[in-house]
Amino acid sequence: MKYDLLIKGGRVFSPQNLGTVDIAIKGDKISALGNFSNGEAEEVINAKDMLIFPGIIETHAHMLLPLAGTVTKNDFYSGTVAGAFGGVTTLIDFADQKKGSFPLEAIKERINQADGRTVIDYSFHCTLTDINKKTVAQIKKIIDMGITSFKIYTIYKEDGLYVEDGDILKIFEELSKLGALVTFHAENESIVRRKTKELKSEGKISSNFSLLNKPAISEEEAVRRVILLAKETGVTVLFRHISSAGAINAIREAKLSGQQVYGETCPHYLMFTNKVYHEKESRNFIVHPPIRDIRDREELWKGIYDGSISVIGTDDCAFTKEQKKISDNFFEIPGGIPGIETRLVILFDEGVLRRGLSVEKFVEITSSNPAKIYGLYPKKGTIQVGSDADLIIINDKKEFTIKSDKLHDMADWSPFEGRKVKVKLEVTISKGKVIVKNDKFLGKMGDGRFLKRRFGIAL
Amino acid sequence: MKYDLLIKGGRVFSPQNLGTVDIAIKGDKISALGNFSNGEAEEVINAKDMLIFPGIIETHAHMLLPLAGTVTKNDFYSGTVAGAFGGVTTLIDFADQKKGSFPLEAIKERINQADGRTVIDYSFHCTLTDINKKTVAQIKKIIDMGITSFKIYTIYKEDGLYVEDGDILKIFEELSKLGALVTFHAENESIVRRKTKELKSEGKISSNFSLLNKPAISEEEAVRRVILLAKETGVTVLFRHISSAGAINAIREAKLSGQQVYGETCPHYLMFTNKVYHEKESRNFIVHPPIRDIRDREELWKGIYDGSISVIGTDDCAFTKEQKKISDNFFEIPGGIPGIETRLVILFDEGVLRRGLSVEKFVEITSSNPAKIYGLYPKKGTIQVGSDADLIIINDKKEFTIKSDKLHDMADWSPFEGRKVKVKLEVTISKGKVIVKNDKFLGKMGDGRFLKRRFGIAL
Amino acid sequence: MKYDLLIKGGRVFSPQNLGTVDIAIKGDKISALGNFSNGEAEEVINAKDMLIFPGIIETHAHMLLPLAGTVTKNDFYSGTVAGAFGGVTTLIDFADQKKGSFPLEAIKERINQADGRTVIDYSFHCTLTDINKKTVAQIKKIIDMGITSFKIYTIYKEDGLYVEDGDILKIFEELSKLGALVTFHAENESIVRRKTKELKSEGKISSNFSLLNKPAISEEEAVRRVILLAKETGVTVLFRHISSAGAINAIREAKLSGQQVYGETCPHYLMFTNKVYHEKESRNFIVHPPIRDIRDREELWKGIYDGSISVIGTDDCAFTKEQKKISDNFFEIPGGIPGIETRLVILFDEGVLRRGLSVEKFVEITSSNPAKIYGLYPKKGTIQVGSDADLIIINDKKEFTIKSDKLHDMADWSPFEGRKVKVKLEVTISKGKVIVKNDKFLGKMGDGRFLKRRFGIAL
Amino acid sequence: MKYDLLIKGGRVFSPQNLGTVDIAIKGDKISALGNFSNGEAEEVINAKDMLIFPGIIETHAHMLLPLAGTVTKNDFYSGTVAGAFGGVTTLIDFADQKKGSFPLEAIKERINQADGRTVIDYSFHCTLTDINKKTVAQIKKIIDMGITSFKIYTIYKEDGLYVEDGDILKIFEELSKLGALVTFHAENESIVRRKTKELKSEGKISSNFSLLNKPAISEEEAVRRVILLAKETGVTVLFRHISSAGAINAIREAKLSGQQVYGETCPHYLMFTNKVYHEKESRNFIVHPPIRDIRDREELWKGIYDGSISVIGTDDCAFTKEQKKISDNFFEIPGGIPGIETRLVILFDEGVLRRGLSVEKFVEITSSNPAKIYGLYPKKGTIQVGSDADLIIINDKKEFTIKSDKLHDMADWSPFEGRKVKVKLEVTISKGKVIVKNDKFLGKMGDGRFLKRRFGIAL
Repeated sequence: MKYDLLIKGGRVFSPQNLGTVDIAIKGDKISALGNFSNGEAEEVINAKDMLIFPGIIETHAHMLLPLAGTVTKNDFYSGTVAGAFGGVTTLIDFADQKKGSFPLEAIKERINQADGRTVIDYSFHCTLTDINKKTVAQIKKIIDMGITSFKIYTIYKEDGLYVEDGDILKIFEELSKLGALVTFHAENESIVRRKTKELKSEGKISSNFSLLNKPAISEEEAVRRVILLAKETGVTVLFRHISSAGAINAIREAKLSGQQVYGETCPHYLMFTNKVYHEKESRNFIVHPPIRDIRDREELWKGIYDGSISVIGTDDCAFTKEQKKISDNFFEIPGGIPGIETRLVILFDEGVLRRGLSVEKFVEITSSNPAKIYGLYPKKGTIQVGSDADLIIINDKKEFTIKSDKLHDMADWSPFEGRKVKVKLEVTISKGKVIVKNDKFLGKMGDGRFLKRRFGIAL
Repeated sequence: MKYDLLIKGGRVFSPQNLGTVDIAIKGDKISALGNFSNGEAEEVINAKDMLIFPGIIETHAHMLLPLAGTVTKNDFYSGTVAGAFGGVTTLIDFADQKKGSFPLEAIKERINQADGRTVIDYSFHCTLTDINKKTVAQIKKIIDMGITSFKIYTIYKEDGLYVEDGDILKIFEELSKLGALVTFHAENESIVRRKTKELKSEGKISSNFSLLNKPAISEEEAVRRVILLAKETGVTVLFRHISSAGAINAIREAKLSGQQVYGETCPHYLMFTNKVYHEKESRNFIVHPPIRDIRDREELWKGIYDGSISVIGTDDCAFTKEQKKISDNFFEIPGGIPGIETRLVILFDEGVLRRGLSVEKFVEITSSNPAKIYGLYPKKGTIQVGSDADLIIINDKKEFTIKSDKLHDMADWSPFEGRKVKVKLEVTISKGKVIVKNDKFLGKMGDGRFLKRRFGIAL
Repeated sequence: MKYDLLIKGGRVFSPQNLGTVDIAIKGDKISALGNFSNGEAEEVINAKDMLIFPGIIETHAHMLLPLAGTVTKNDFYSGTVAGAFGGVTTLIDFADQKKGSFPLEAIKERINQADGRTVIDYSFHCTLTDINKKTVAQIKKIIDMGITSFKIYTIYKEDGLYVEDGDILKIFEELSKLGALVTFHAENESIVRRKTKELKSEGKISSNFSLLNKPAISEEEAVRRVILLAKETGVTVLFRHISSAGAINAIREAKLSGQQVYGETCPHYLMFTNKVYHEKESRNFIVHPPIRDIRDREELWKGIYDGSISVIGTDDCAFTKEQKKISDNFFEIPGGIPGIETRLVILFDEGVLRRGLSVEKFVEITSSNPAKIYGLYPKKGTIQVGSDADLIIINDKKEFTIKSDKLHDMADWSPFEGRKVKVKLEVTISKGKVIVKNDKFLGKMGDGRFLKRRFGIAL
Repeated sequence: MKYDLLIKGGRVFSPQNLGTVDIAIKGDKISALGNFSNGEAEEVINAKDMLIFPGIIETHAHMLLPLAGTVTKNDFYSGTVAGAFGGVTTLIDFADQKKGSFPLEAIKERINQADGRTVIDYSFHCTLTDINKKTVAQIKKIIDMGITSFKIYTIYKEDGLYVEDGDILKIFEELSKLGALVTFHAENESIVRRKTKELKSEGKISSNFSLLNKPAISEEEAVRRVILLAKETGVTVLFRHISSAGAINAIREAKLSGQQVYGETCPHYLMFTNKVYHEKESRNFIVHPPIRDIRDREELWKGIYDGSISVIGTDDCAFTKEQKKISDNFFEIPGGIPGIETRLVILFDEGVLRRGLSVEKFVEITSSNPAKIYGLYPKKGTIQVGSDADLIIINDKKEFTIKSDKLHDMADWSPFEGRKVKVKLEVTISKGKVIVKNDKFLGKMGDGRFLKRRFGIAL
């Protein structure tokens, strides 16, 4: 058989270490693993001494998200192009039910926005904000569409996102019969509201006060509460953007007791501490939950090692510096930072090269785990015969400096500006086609397809 | 010295077993323990073969409580007389802040109601319902008055009792500097509200559906949440009327981890199961939280043995059968049952005589523990020289049958109607004066005094 | 490239589920995974609808073991042939230091016995029985030879196998610097000796008393003690033939606390209960430790699911019925039963087909885990390009009945005689050569090679 | 009634704080607690501002103990006189079965030594060293004599003291039917023997090497092993002279799990660290187990606070400096130090005055707890009507310096030589008679009686 594309001589992690082996691609699938001669394929990429991973699955990013009176600058084209430069070959964004409307409408609207615009495959999580009979009635349809993960906020009442405990329990009772995953933005609505009121009344509204607004206990409490309700009903849950040691401990204990609970964190919680709120551009680092102290950061790393953290999302929000300057009142500054393109090199450099994270673990938390948890495995998230040929080729011997003007998203800054890293993405392959090579984008708008997802499988 | 009163020959538990020893009283105090001749006292009570305990401290009862459009029938006279027949020599009732008003006003009003009416010493817990600056400012004054325990509801929003998490945290932050105890009616407001709505919409409003309204998880969740916030701030908390195994487990775990957390339960949770809701007079057993299943009941007993339950309160609400018939809709039936008079014999008979509870433990949970927790020890709650001569003399060889028409409160029924017990109260002594003897009340309205309490001491 | 052998159309578990994929073999290695046409290989095996696993690694079997005055009947030829029919492609047997002699001598002797006789690759664990300076001095040499696992007995003083705590600690102190694994036969010498004395003095020597000789506490105690000493020194340990719930709990707790501890159990502990000692042929079931009650058996299965048990060994001892009849005194009956050939079908049938064990877990505990723990991975224990082509092809749709006269070892009976199973081994491939097919042995004496093992890797 | 002796105005701890109350004594018993006038008694002691405790119960001391070729210098007279000056009013020493002989013989011999010689009441623990049928048969008789506590060594094989696990289990099986307590000298025989051999062969025999002989793991291991065997059989155990953090943790865990396990430690483990082995007189501090590092010491204090340590014994061995100089080889130096007289002031000064131990806890660990554990309560160990009038009067406002030439035992040195303490014993009363006052001994040889003890009661 003549293959379409041969990747020769790379060190392949599927995530397991497959040693040095050639990958042969036919059409959009991995067709064979072995040792092949150049003549056996139409095109050959020499990956000698390079690392080859399954493409990154971004499960937490926000294209065209309306927030704080503005909208994130990435649309589904620019966002997925930036992703491709960050090794991302699958995007799962969000479709947020609007209060008073229903989830299927939000899903339709978001598919309309994405359709024909993404350069990689995509899907959505469905955010539920208004739990009534019709909402509940739509859930089965949503799952049948291939949207098998939901999101619930335990905060943001004013913004119409907050879901109260009784409704969470209701949804859990429904989903326990169906099997889908529920992901959470878990913070305590009441505690944060009280703190907000106090800070505002005391005039503490500049960015350096932002940490006081959302104490760690507000995250830990919400996480523990959701875990308890999930245990009661047998539902699998995942916690988004975990930022605190207390929340990690809660997840760890639940896992040890045998409950199916997952944690996600983001590069900014792993790389920074609350010092950022005392620096000049503190406004840029307004994120929710906030970046905490060094003990929290170290516990997050520990969580990766021990499995309390299963997934790295970026929570990418491409806000420009201008957008971040909307107000000097941090309550009015849009929360969120760009990251979809930098996660790969940042996490590999800090995690694998500096902190001794194994390469296998890196691939698990960026690709295999999200594929399994979100129902894409083994189509995505692994390098094996028959899987989609979504691959990235990494050079762990090349040093470069992150500069925001070289990045491909619509934000004009990066939290990692100026950071030197010793790893570089060489090639991104999406469904058998090279879409990034030599720092050039070679893909095509609209090549991404909506993915019908199955239920996740337990890690 | 000539003593005023001598109690001779009883088996004294202080709570510790002091063996057979005479108690000599002078004025309102215990003056000596030893072996005295009849001539050494003005009056002698022969207590041969009897048990002598420090008087019971009722820390959970409701005189003149407005509820569901009606009011509990006991006022501070009838309620404390009934208490005296149940071995109660101290009452701590509640002063509930009204929404829009302030706690000190409630306290004044309640002292006015009680003053000159009680036959035994009394105090109040202060219920906080509206956490604002003025409320917070009053806390120190309240403590200085000798009211060192508070109560917070995590439920009953419609009734103006609910306090949300942010306000609980605020109060905890304040109290952590002062040292007072916070007691909780802990149920999840949102879960119960959702269930209420569902039951009402489905027409499930007869008493036998009441259990569905408040699932055990709603108690366990609230207990765990409050424990977490208390741990964060270092405040000591006590949970009222614990009804479920899950809540007991939460308290037990917190205690094992070294946190200062106490549990209270009530005789009805220890004596009944949810079968009561399937019997003819199920309406009478409407209480909050509801009586649960046999596994919960047994876990409550286990909690007494292992210390997870430290106090037995009765949650006494003297509603008549007529009052309980206000409506056939259980949501409109006043919740609560009478119990201040029957607790002594019910708990001794079931606990000590049938389940092997030690006499020492009985005295601890009815007298010494509440005295310590609520800041009355060693004035109350112990039999030692210098303590108030609040004593009860018990005959554990006399059998009788509980009949509501022989009880002394204003309710005209008892949940324990017709139950045979093998123990009887012979004498109640309050501050050196015999107030119950030979089934007669010998005390005087107004002999009770307001108690200025100190901070509690750790068990 | 022309491959030597192609296995087409099987469902491959590496242990991970690779789906339906062809395996191409060149020489003794797996050369490629993909979809290949028949013409691409010299020889083709059609494995349609079959399951393909990496060959089983037997880490606990005894060829030519002198015991109780007799010797196990399998030599390294007959034992490995029987193994091949049981899907075994690697054998790690034991080289037991004799008291007064040194480990290297034992290793040499055992290699002599095996060399040129095995039909599959082999290695030895080194049993240490006499801990003195010279023994300690040899350890590094032994490891350099590729023997990276040791065995210690905490019992059998009379037989010269017992190593006392001080010597275990000494060995641990030495090995903590080197890195090797220590495996244990863990029972309490003193408890068993005391019980033995009592039973003998009371004349309780028939097989049905054998259980009294070795109470479960004697295993649990020894396991906990070794875990503690291992924790103190940082050494990795594995417990052989775990038989009791208490021992499983000890291993589970140690693992949860982060210690590197592994458990092994054997098919007979998973399949039988102590009822066997009350049946006619109870003498045949004399094993050490004994088979315990149903609660223990179920806890062992639970241990497989939760990872407390990482490896299934057979503890194969090919004693004939005649040998088992040496004496009516169970203390004199050679302990051990045959099992190397039956493990595959017994464990797959009971575990996967009846108890819902996943196929992946089956492959882990029989192949990948032992390969990792004992330093053979990824040469053995996985199906990936570059690994040894040690494979088995399984038909999970064929039913047959185990009959000892159809088995290939030198024992003339099987504990599983007459059991119906719904799975059958079709083909065994060792280093690229088909050695079992159509119930025929096609391999060659001496094709097995001594394996130089590395240190294990953590699971 | 005219009392014999009145102690007026002291602050009484029974151990509970009874406030300021007079104690009236008639004969050898406490007759009354109250407020009495001087005329009511023959003799009055003014204890204004003093502390009054129940007399200390010494449960670990060695009179006339043969050890290392010599004998402790205190006999039952000098030892109990010294005790009386240390507030001790009850002594429980040991009767050690000799290998080849039987426990009843040892008991008789020891009663002969003590009878007519002690100045306070006394009893013995029975040390079992040779577990055979006759030994087992004597146990019931021993208990019937009132000796309800045993001692077992898990070490000292050469000295004929070691009892192996099988025999411990045997004894436990017997005692589980009877109810007695077993106390342990718990160290791992094999580990210590191995270390001894190594140290001797390396010539490391001077006192400063003594710590290497008995690593902490050797204590922790033995403690954990005994706890496991005790749990298996339901026997209550107490561990003597706990010296290490690991052993404390083992006891703490067992207690949390609900097992009845007690810990004892000694003043020298609480006051010193292993620095003593690097000082000039290191030989004097040879004790078994050795004094460990500061982390261990602090964990022992923590153990007192949290209840892991229930009793303070002194392990008093009155060896003179001369005896300690028998050899320069620490293996030949008699292990043990004097302490029966100094424990009171050392522990009160360091514990209560410097480390914030409550007075109640001090009384519990020196008097009430040992009384309860060893079956003397409420005859001893409490201040209540009817109890033996064993009392001590303490002045916590008087400072003095410990000087060995002012002490009353037969050792000529003290480990606490020169230490300033801010507490002083003023009076010791034994069974109603003042035996120490104004630093004078006023008691009489032979006034002590053998105590028939009951079974202990759980703390």
